[in-house]
Amino acid sequence: MKIKLLDGSFKEFDQALSVKEIASSIAISLGKSTVGAKVNGVFVSADFVVDKDVNLELVTTRSEYFDDYMNMTSALITGIAIAKLYKANLAETYYNADEKEFAITFEVEPRIGLEQLESIQAEVNNILKLETIKSSKMTMAQAEKEFAHNPYQLHLAQQANETFGYVPVYTLCDIKAVVIGGIITDIKVMKVIDIQQLTGSYWLNDSENVMLQRVHGMCGINQISLDEKKAMIEERRSRDHRLINKQLNIFGFDNLVGPGLPLWMPNGTIIKDEIKTYLKLKEWEYDYVHVTTPVIGSVDLYRTSGHWDHYGEDMFQPFSGGNGSEEQFVLRPMNCPHHIAVYKQEQHSYRELPIRIAEHAIQHRYESSGSLTGLERVRGMELTDSHIFVRPDQLATEFKQIYKLISEVLTTFNIEIDYLSFSLRDPQDKNKYFQDDKMWNDAEAALEAVLDELNLEYKKCVGEAAFYGPKLDIQIKTAQNHEITVSTIQLDFLLPRKFDVTYVDQNQEYQTPIMIHRGLIGTYERFIATLLEQTKGVLPLWLAPNQVEIIPIGNSENFDYAEQLRQIFKKEMIRSHIDLRDERLSYKIRDAQTHKVPFQLVIGNLETQNQTVTFRRYGSENQVTISQQQFIDIIKKEIASKQ
Amino acid sequence: MKIKLLDGSFKEFDQALSVKEIASSIAISLGKSTVGAKVNGVFVSADFVVDKDVNLELVTTRSEYFDDYMNMTSALITGIAIAKLYKANLAETYYNADEKEFAITFEVEPRIGLEQLESIQAEVNNILKLETIKSSKMTMAQAEKEFAHNPYQLHLAQQANETFGYVPVYTLCDIKAVVIGGIITDIKVMKVIDIQQLTGSYWLNDSENVMLQRVHGMCGINQISLDEKKAMIEERRSRDHRLINKQLNIFGFDNLVGPGLPLWMPNGTIIKDEIKTYLKLKEWEYDYVHVTTPVIGSVDLYRTSGHWDHYGEDMFQPFSGGNGSEEQFVLRPMNCPHHIAVYKQEQHSYRELPIRIAEHAIQHRYESSGSLTGLERVRGMELTDSHIFVRPDQLATEFKQIYKLISEVLTTFNIEIDYLSFSLRDPQDKNKYFQDDKMWNDAEAALEAVLDELNLEYKKCVGEAAFYGPKLDIQIKTAQNHEITVSTIQLDFLLPRKFDVTYVDQNQEYQTPIMIHRGLIGTYERFIATLLEQTKGVLPLWLAPNQVEIIPIGNSENFDYAEQLRQIFKKEMIRSHIDLRDERLSYKIRDAQTHKVPFQLVIGNLETQNQTVTFRRYGSENQVTISQQQFIDIIKKEIASKQ
Repeated sequence: MKIKLLDGSFKEFDQALSVKEIASSIAISLGKSTVGAKVNGVFVSADFVVDKDVNLELVTTRSEYFDDYMNMTSALITGIAIAKLYKANLAETYYNADEKEFAITFEVEPRIGLEQLESIQAEVNNILKLETIKSSKMTMAQAEKEFAHNPYQLHLAQQANETFGYVPVYTLCDIKAVVIGGIITDIKVMKVIDIQQLTGSYWLNDSENVMLQRVHGMCGINQISLDEKKAMIEERRSRDHRLINKQLNIFGFDNLVGPGLPLWMPNGTIIKDEIKTYLKLKEWEYDYVHVTTPVIGSVDLYRTSGHWDHYGEDMFQPFSGGNGSEEQFVLRPMNCPHHIAVYKQEQHSYRELPIRIAEHAIQHRYESSGSLTGLERVRGMELTDSHIFVRPDQLATEFKQIYKLISEVLTTFNIEIDYLSFSLRDPQDKNKYFQDDKMWNDAEAALEAVLDELNLEYKKCVGEAAFYGPKLDIQIKTAQNHEITVSTIQLDFLLPRKFDVTYVDQNQEYQTPIMIHRGLIGTYERFIATLLEQTKGVLPLWLAPNQVEIIPIGNSENFDYAEQLRQIFKKEMIRSHIDLRDERLSYKIRDAQTHKVPFQLVIGNLETQNQTVTFRRYGSENQVTISQQQFIDIIKKEIASKQ
Repeated sequence: MKIKLLDGSFKEFDQALSVKEIASSIAISLGKSTVGAKVNGVFVSADFVVDKDVNLELVTTRSEYFDDYMNMTSALITGIAIAKLYKANLAETYYNADEKEFAITFEVEPRIGLEQLESIQAEVNNILKLETIKSSKMTMAQAEKEFAHNPYQLHLAQQANETFGYVPVYTLCDIKAVVIGGIITDIKVMKVIDIQQLTGSYWLNDSENVMLQRVHGMCGINQISLDEKKAMIEERRSRDHRLINKQLNIFGFDNLVGPGLPLWMPNGTIIKDEIKTYLKLKEWEYDYVHVTTPVIGSVDLYRTSGHWDHYGEDMFQPFSGGNGSEEQFVLRPMNCPHHIAVYKQEQHSYRELPIRIAEHAIQHRYESSGSLTGLERVRGMELTDSHIFVRPDQLATEFKQIYKLISEVLTTFNIEIDYLSFSLRDPQDKNKYFQDDKMWNDAEAALEAVLDELNLEYKKCVGEAAFYGPKLDIQIKTAQNHEITVSTIQLDFLLPRKFDVTYVDQNQEYQTPIMIHRGLIGTYERFIATLLEQTKGVLPLWLAPNQVEIIPIGNSENFDYAEQLRQIFKKEMIRSHIDLRDERLSYKIRDAQTHKVPFQLVIGNLETQNQTVTFRRYGSENQVTISQQQFIDIIKKEIASKQ
């Protein structure tokens, strides 16, 4: 048999060998550190026997997949401990890489309680002292017999049998369990397993099914690495924008308005509007024109664009007009057809191009209610959208300008680009791609030349272009470690043709422009979620909803002076708020800190008499007393700096 | 019988008398000038016989209704001329007061053409030399016989019979016609009838019916008054915002996007955004907070608010989510429930009130396609909306503040208030109004006290309040002579209760605030239509989409200098555009005038050499040469002045 390794080289063997044996045949040390492999894309354990030609990627203790293996094994060990202690029916092992957490689901009568987690931890620790997990294969018939009384394991066995042609079964403490995925059979490799939580979970995530119990935990190669992992997850959770929102009151939801439809509260609207003003100014600088177009369109509009056929199920469904009208409308899922309609209101000359139509545009997509996540995943959103109509000869220059704009904007928000993903067509694939070889070749070459000219590194993804043209996605990593596309530049050869978009060239002949879809910072919803998580809610002054909390103490003169200051600040476009509550000073200061207000002014008799202010910056204990004007200057300078 | 006259006095007669006889009995001169009367609200001719107790308002040659009578009579005379010339079947007389135009519909075989209008005019002039139109009454049976071959007149006869109990028939040149409305039987009163136009029109405006022909004309008491009327209508038509839009390119429509859904073009978006920035700044000055809420809501939201039951037919109809979801949503027709949802995100204390939630909010209403009129009547609109939550003791102060804000804003736009309409409940009407006597009495008294304190004149409209509270509407007259409500302040006692909106008072008890609906300048759509008509598109500099048209002549250095100027202006936030077309200078200057660009810069060699600008103001022939900085200062000063 012929084994293709990850580096592209081949190894030939004349007999079936286990993964570990194959690894050892390359190097003895490699054999020792191998815990499993990805065989034709499927994760298997080290004792998996290869008996035919395959692609093989070894998983060692240094591999990026090692953590997955550790966690799946920890889940199995925990499950075995539970089965041993309570004769539970095991169900399935899980690993959530985002949360660095494993879990095992099971059914037991009576249900276990939180107080049993300690005993489970003790039993897990005992098992960790053992040597190996025995790995074996069963036929489906054997598995049906073995797991006759456990429908969950039977279900897994069926799945496994469909994938492998047999059922992988692991035995430990005389208990057998089916696991799909890589298990480290050498228990000595496993070090620390920390049992953490007990929850409930419907079998197969389906609320029609029985509610199983689930024990969660984390594991590490030693206590230090486990503690680091825990701290990292803790830190990440503290950055969850839904948590930060509780202090900052940026957005809310209302069940009667509808799930996934954010209400931007006054604080959120300030952030959104400040960003919008800034972005529109940048777009003005780059000669964009702004339009405002309807949030709905006729169903025929989306039939023409093709969105309806490709995308209809993910849209909110059509509706009719009132008073028995038969007209059919739909909430728009994207804005291209509307911007094309704007372009087509007039006949354009080659001299007018590029025409850069921008709109911070409301659009709707129907996300399932289970997937809705704060501002990160919503059903109604506002996209920083633009469609740019260019002549082919303007493509390179325009692409460079767009990239420059995006990169300036991301820098302002201190957002680091993770990588650029440059998606090209696969020239061999004649079905997927819009057919115009010259158009594709010229455009891809032009874009690549620009990327090289700008000295940018990028991942070239052949075959990942949309069917209508190549694109550049600007990828970032959020504080939650999610990779998202924050900005995008997509060429579109197709839509201008579908809608018969033209310009008149030098020879008075009609030509079709190329359309560029440009997403500047994606949607306000997701961008602000990202920003909140990145800053932990400590926004730069220009974005802080409340810039100055004024805390008057004592007599009514001080309250009057506080109001006087608020009015002065208002004229200077500085956002301030007076804390009028009947609370102690220390409480009010702490509260302003909790709400991450950049400046706190404490107004006592001295300040009132001298018409000064005493301020304290967020996160600092220092108090500084200065004149009103000095304070205003400090604030205005910092606002202007956008830092 | 007892006749109640307009001034409230009574006249008693012991026999039936015609309108003219009643008038003469008051004064002989009155009898002479009387052409008809409004009897119990219905217009009748002077020979109408009154035989029972009625309310009677005489129509004389000095009455506001005299024009209506003149026009209906002109329509009848024109109809008689057409019937006489072509044996046409007459249908109905019309009068369009907005257009100061009468019309008569008829059917004739073969159809008449434009070339026949001259003969009709001649015949009309002949008829004007006659003395009287004979007025008579027919029973329905008689009318059925008389008009057996004319379904249009038969239809009118039936309508008339239902109203009067008989059919009013007028005879002229031996031709009989049914007319509902006041006819001046004394032809000598009629002076000039001007036949103008020939169009087609479905009988009863129903496209299922036969297409009739329609002759239009205007009339006057003499040639001078007719010419004045024509000039006024011409002027009014030139102010039609749809016409002005052809030069300014403010908005457009697209059939695939959908009728009544305006596309705000770049120029329109500039106007809209400038106004919005200004209004939001005013709202900031008045301590409003801005929110952004979804343009849709669940159907249940509007069931709770009551909009669905009262208003459902005029809404776009509900729609469901995607992927087979059963959730039901609907485009919002107004924003109150959303702002209530914002308010309810937190528990509020009496100290925080008033809370002024503002949103320039997109909403949708289903207007029938026939009623859609440019930006004036649309299906998707953006309302300058606010909902203010106040304690009862804050009502008067807040009402005064709102009025002050509105009045400052209207002054900025040079919009004159026509009158204030103050709508109160009818205390006798126990069914229509939300029942809380104290609330109504206190609120109405507070509002009236403020109006008096502000020395405002207002029309008191008892019984015209909404069922949920009293209101003040600010009425203006548009250039098209339409009366519209531009701003509104409406109290609402009811909705806060329906949604269980509360605040906590000094005693830690829950109280219900009063909600005030505040419309600042109505919708952007209608307001900008009004503004365009009022200014004929010659907008003040701060609103002009293109502020400076730069026209370079001759060599490429001048074009370079033009671009240099554009970049300088851009940095100063001055909107400019370079005319790059291959056209003659005079053409370009004329074109900039047509597009109402406030400043035109002609850039020749001299300007380029000296780095100066030579400008010409819109509407002026004067050319002035000054330095760049001087020019920028002039412009920036004028922008800041908002004049």
